[in-house]
Amino acid sequence: MKFGGTSVADLSKMKGAALRVQAEVESGNQIILIVSAMAGTTDDLIGRVGQISSLYDAREYDAIVSSGETVTAGLMALILQSMGINSRSWQGWQIPINTTDDHSNARIRKIETGNLIEKFASGMQVAVVAGFQGVSDNSRITTLGRGGSDTTAVALAAAFKAKRCDIYTDVDGVFTTDPRITPNAQKLEKISYEEMLELASLGAKVLQTRSVELAMSYKVRLRVLNSFGSGSGTLVCDEEDIMEKRIVSGITFSKDEAKLTVVGVKDKPGMAGNVFDCLAKASINVDMIIQNISEDGLTDVTFSCPTSQVGVAKKALEQGKSTNNFNYSKLVEDKQVAKISIVGIGMRSHSGVAQTMFKTLGKENINIKVISTSEIKISVLIDRKYLELAVQSLHEAFGLEKALN
Amino acid sequence: MKFGGTSVADLSKMKGAALRVQAEVESGNQIILIVSAMAGTTDDLIGRVGQISSLYDAREYDAIVSSGETVTAGLMALILQSMGINSRSWQGWQIPINTTDDHSNARIRKIETGNLIEKFASGMQVAVVAGFQGVSDNSRITTLGRGGSDTTAVALAAAFKAKRCDIYTDVDGVFTTDPRITPNAQKLEKISYEEMLELASLGAKVLQTRSVELAMSYKVRLRVLNSFGSGSGTLVCDEEDIMEKRIVSGITFSKDEAKLTVVGVKDKPGMAGNVFDCLAKASINVDMIIQNISEDGLTDVTFSCPTSQVGVAKKALEQGKSTNNFNYSKLVEDKQVAKISIVGIGMRSHSGVAQTMFKTLGKENINIKVISTSEIKISVLIDRKYLELAVQSLHEAFGLEKALN
Repeated sequence: MKFGGTSVADLSKMKGAALRVQAEVESGNQIILIVSAMAGTTDDLIGRVGQISSLYDAREYDAIVSSGETVTAGLMALILQSMGINSRSWQGWQIPINTTDDHSNARIRKIETGNLIEKFASGMQVAVVAGFQGVSDNSRITTLGRGGSDTTAVALAAAFKAKRCDIYTDVDGVFTTDPRITPNAQKLEKISYEEMLELASLGAKVLQTRSVELAMSYKVRLRVLNSFGSGSGTLVCDEEDIMEKRIVSGITFSKDEAKLTVVGVKDKPGMAGNVFDCLAKASINVDMIIQNISEDGLTDVTFSCPTSQVGVAKKALEQGKSTNNFNYSKLVEDKQVAKISIVGIGMRSHSGVAQTMFKTLGKENINIKVISTSEIKISVLIDRKYLELAVQSLHEAFGLEKALN
Repeated sequence: MKFGGTSVADLSKMKGAALRVQAEVESGNQIILIVSAMAGTTDDLIGRVGQISSLYDAREYDAIVSSGETVTAGLMALILQSMGINSRSWQGWQIPINTTDDHSNARIRKIETGNLIEKFASGMQVAVVAGFQGVSDNSRITTLGRGGSDTTAVALAAAFKAKRCDIYTDVDGVFTTDPRITPNAQKLEKISYEEMLELASLGAKVLQTRSVELAMSYKVRLRVLNSFGSGSGTLVCDEEDIMEKRIVSGITFSKDEAKLTVVGVKDKPGMAGNVFDCLAKASINVDMIIQNISEDGLTDVTFSCPTSQVGVAKKALEQGKSTNNFNYSKLVEDKQVAKISIVGIGMRSHSGVAQTMFKTLGKENINIKVISTSEIKISVLIDRKYLELAVQSLHEAFGLEKALN
């Protein structure tokens, strides 16, 4: 069981979470309970680090920000104890959860199960584990990136071959799209790992992408549930376990996307490679790419990247111009864009999905600026002002308002 | 160098502390910097624990409250790095500082010096150590009791055979008495370990008692300095290093003291023993004891203890009456008392100190309720309302307003 930051925001919410844990204990289950920092705590700590320097030592950052989870784990253990449940807290290094030393974005390498198994054998009913944190080979605290507690939960579920991995959050489950934009968005009873992975990486904030990857690799039976509700949530599972498949399961979007066009690049082999090589070296997270038809031996290369990286991207390109063996006449940026994506495993077996998407947007006079696709996803970049309209009309076009599966 | 909670209360105060560390680095010193939690943090955390249960698991308490020091250590390391100083943070378990498993009041057993020495050899200039915390044999976080960061500092100074141990706090040093009560109280340039130990255990809050014991055992050259001032502070040192000794060095007091009289105890051998045995079993911290002259085979036993323990003490005595083989007619409590103590190594060689003390109080018509003495200390219990008057007149009687040593 994993409870996110809003689910443990204060002592009374923690007690609510503890009641859910108690019910599982009473059903005879042994529980590994993963907790996030109390909502706001991590941001406060990051804020303090940011006030010292923008170029901070990630090892110290990790030691500092991981303290939020440590506190919640201790408090939850005390609450469970006060309810008569045999529990104790575990920090990442105590289990230990061994990770790479990529501080602030470490990956789990190995989870030692012996210590917990021993304690369970001697009467421990609930192991409360501080999420988000691990320890490197040289005994320094690491963290797993924003949302890393999801990954802690799934990794522990895999390591201990847990019956289930229940992720408690502040929404009812995974929806066909954001209900704040499309009020008749439907909660999905089930979604496949592949779809969830696309949704997570496209900006749906319900689960950390890496946690879904891990769940898929280790076939962890993952459920997303509401801490504050009583619904059945959404089960993230194998495609085979979903009887009635929708063609499109979800529509997601991201406003944090900007478009950059490199105008007048010489159209000869290797040129685009040089441009993106230069961007990769500057760690720009290039998302969608399009190259125009050549005219007079020159072409335009357009790509999208997170809005926050536009400045760095422009600087890298300007510097690269002289040194990286490419040239261009000018850079055009557009920050007023949004990315809309439709995701569904049904696309594999149904043709015409792209056509329906483009037609629907066309009917609303929404111009598509860039397109990218994968086997189970189509993404388009459009003017940001059309975001809500696009999501609503696509939601209707693919019949997502009808409750299914 | 150790900085207390008020000296690291916020980032700007931490930067001030960092400047003092920088000056030492520039003088060519290698520094172990011990930090407390930011002022208020530990109390906040303790408050949360208290809201869950009054009977909490001290192991979880330790895991929770130690997080304050962890955060400060990380932030200080970042601040020092931003000033170009090679530094990193160390948590208790990373050094490790091995302690007993008496959670929330653990004692240091062993400090591993190898890891820090290795890092110093490879260029580390400042090791920032989270004070107050250690780790038990079974890898759980322990804490050293309130003010435990002083003990961390002195223990590290001893283990690493440090040249000095500088304790930075929010006062100029150790005073002849509390300047808030006696404005002409003088800062002491030097004080002996023995005197400091008496003052600390009698309620002077400037240093944790155990840290002074440790400093005395290992002859650590201990200085108390003001983070926010430029004075030379007070050196706590061997008696032999103090040339001109005062007869009385300091006057301290405690308001947190109550007097309890057990009236009508049968005056026969072993009776008082039974009474105090009963109190000891209830963990009552009995301080001063007096027994009246017997009358008709009955006597009164009076003792003092912390005000907060009066309830428990009375309950223990009432229950003990039937089972512990003693009897009494009634219990009389007096919470309106205060304890005043005069401390000085000069008492050993000077007679008449007690006489001067009693005469001075008598002249002010202050009645002495209980007296206790040690080789270098005399304590009296008086009505609390006379506290200020008593301190001021004793300060004058022993000539403490004159700057010396």
